[in-house]
Amino acid sequence: MSYSERLIAAMQSKQSPILLGLDPRADMIPEDCFVEGRGDAGAIAKGFERFAFRLMEALALHVVAIKPQIAFYEAYGLPGLQVYANILEKARALDLISIADIKRGDIGSTAEAYAQAHLGGPEMGPFEADAVTINPWLGGDSLEPFFKRCQQRDKGVYLLLHTSNAGSSDLQETNLSSGKKLYSHLAQLIANWQQIWSPQGDYASIGVVVGATYPEQLTELKAVLPRAPFLVPGYGSQGGTGKDVASLYDKTWTPHLINASRSLTFAYRERGTTLEEGAIAAALEMKRDILQHTMLAI
Amino acid sequence: MSYSERLIAAMQSKQSPILLGLDPRADMIPEDCFVEGRGDAGAIAKGFERFAFRLMEALALHVVAIKPQIAFYEAYGLPGLQVYANILEKARALDLISIADIKRGDIGSTAEAYAQAHLGGPEMGPFEADAVTINPWLGGDSLEPFFKRCQQRDKGVYLLLHTSNAGSSDLQETNLSSGKKLYSHLAQLIANWQQIWSPQGDYASIGVVVGATYPEQLTELKAVLPRAPFLVPGYGSQGGTGKDVASLYDKTWTPHLINASRSLTFAYRERGTTLEEGAIAAALEMKRDILQHTMLAI
Repeated sequence: MSYSERLIAAMQSKQSPILLGLDPRADMIPEDCFVEGRGDAGAIAKGFERFAFRLMEALALHVVAIKPQIAFYEAYGLPGLQVYANILEKARALDLISIADIKRGDIGSTAEAYAQAHLGGPEMGPFEADAVTINPWLGGDSLEPFFKRCQQRDKGVYLLLHTSNAGSSDLQETNLSSGKKLYSHLAQLIANWQQIWSPQGDYASIGVVVGATYPEQLTELKAVLPRAPFLVPGYGSQGGTGKDVASLYDKTWTPHLINASRSLTFAYRERGTTLEEGAIAAALEMKRDILQHTMLAI
Repeated sequence: MSYSERLIAAMQSKQSPILLGLDPRADMIPEDCFVEGRGDAGAIAKGFERFAFRLMEALALHVVAIKPQIAFYEAYGLPGLQVYANILEKARALDLISIADIKRGDIGSTAEAYAQAHLGGPEMGPFEADAVTINPWLGGDSLEPFFKRCQQRDKGVYLLLHTSNAGSSDLQETNLSSGKKLYSHLAQLIANWQQIWSPQGDYASIGVVVGATYPEQLTELKAVLPRAPFLVPGYGSQGGTGKDVASLYDKTWTPHLINASRSLTFAYRERGTTLEEGAIAAALEMKRDILQHTMLAI
């Protein structure tokens, strides 16, 4: 089964488009996660693990996939990265699709080494996930080791096409001599790469990241890339709404994921609930918000 | 002492502009590095460590800095990353400047986490180096946590401005409506960021990566960015020569580093020597090649 097919099957069975972002911060996590205190990096990392495991178990039937942001684990060195690997393993046990938010990008044998670490091949990689986010700045040849894994190991990749931050205008929105914006030019390149590396099926395994904070671009880019699975950050805490992402869906499940991190994982703080209760309530609200605008049946 | 001042001091005392790239590959390393065999990731990682330590000791007086490429260590999981951290520690012991080739790039608190991991602050980071390579695709706000460390902790950063691979034309060389190429536009942005974050001294702490395989761009970009330390990959194995990089230097030591990885670290293979002898001979040849074209006194 291709990566996109796996996504659609999971979305259908859970009736949900939610991607759970796992971006732990030591000052935002419930105290009862830190069973070993927070005396050193090892203890804090263990707290991150407890936090992630509790959320994954509580939300396993409400979210399709998880997206741990590796930077937050890398900041705690080897104990942090051990926990990062444990979270990917836990996702496999819970049958949750895993998207490694690594945003790596490099050339030649270096790109191959990153692909091996995070998508495996021929053997299991030490940090193997089902899909990864990657950075396109270095161009097509830097992406090929990842594209190969889509073809050979049913993996998925998401290229950073138009990010949700203000600085995305610095390069991504520059005006080209062709009259296009740079991100539109990149979208065309991605369509070509899909043709080469992922020609089968309604949806390709080569997807894109486009921020929910730019709803017009979502519509525009969906037209240029009808076969791309979208990964949409910026919902919730960054201001994106169900209405903003509605243009992505037709009246059927298409493999587009709406990411929510803080708005689910730290919901317990505003709601005065347990970690699990807050996350479940916020996930149900999010699902309703998206479904009502996309007119999908609940 | 600012990062650039440290670079210049080291170059003056060693009369060398060489940056040693440490990109280990299990099939290219001398057998006698693998004292524990190569049965698993731990044994291979130990071989990588032995390889790096031997090279660093042999070349400590001939190279200014080291640049371990983290992907090759990440591919071997936690044992690989432990060795990566050990190499940075070894560099401190040998008074070699360390440049972490991580090419990270992300937004907000994620960028902050990467900066903390690799440049530290307020405490020592788990993978702390003197400088890092970073990816500018997400724009200025994504780079600020790194720029702050230049200001507050005397660190350095290198932005990927024009890389040495063929695919660099996909985005970096697109033609803008202004008549410029995109990399020229980025160079202008970098000049602005230098003014804000690193206004003191002849040289800024915000540098650039520009491939030796594009000598005309080196000249052009040096004119736009007179205060940027350059990190120039592509010398040797990728075809760049001393003549290609000569335009960077005047008749004095400026903080521009010429990277050589395979051409030094795997020189023993063609030369039929020990690891150390091959690397030393290749480093001396490289030094001579660069110095004769830049007319610096040996």
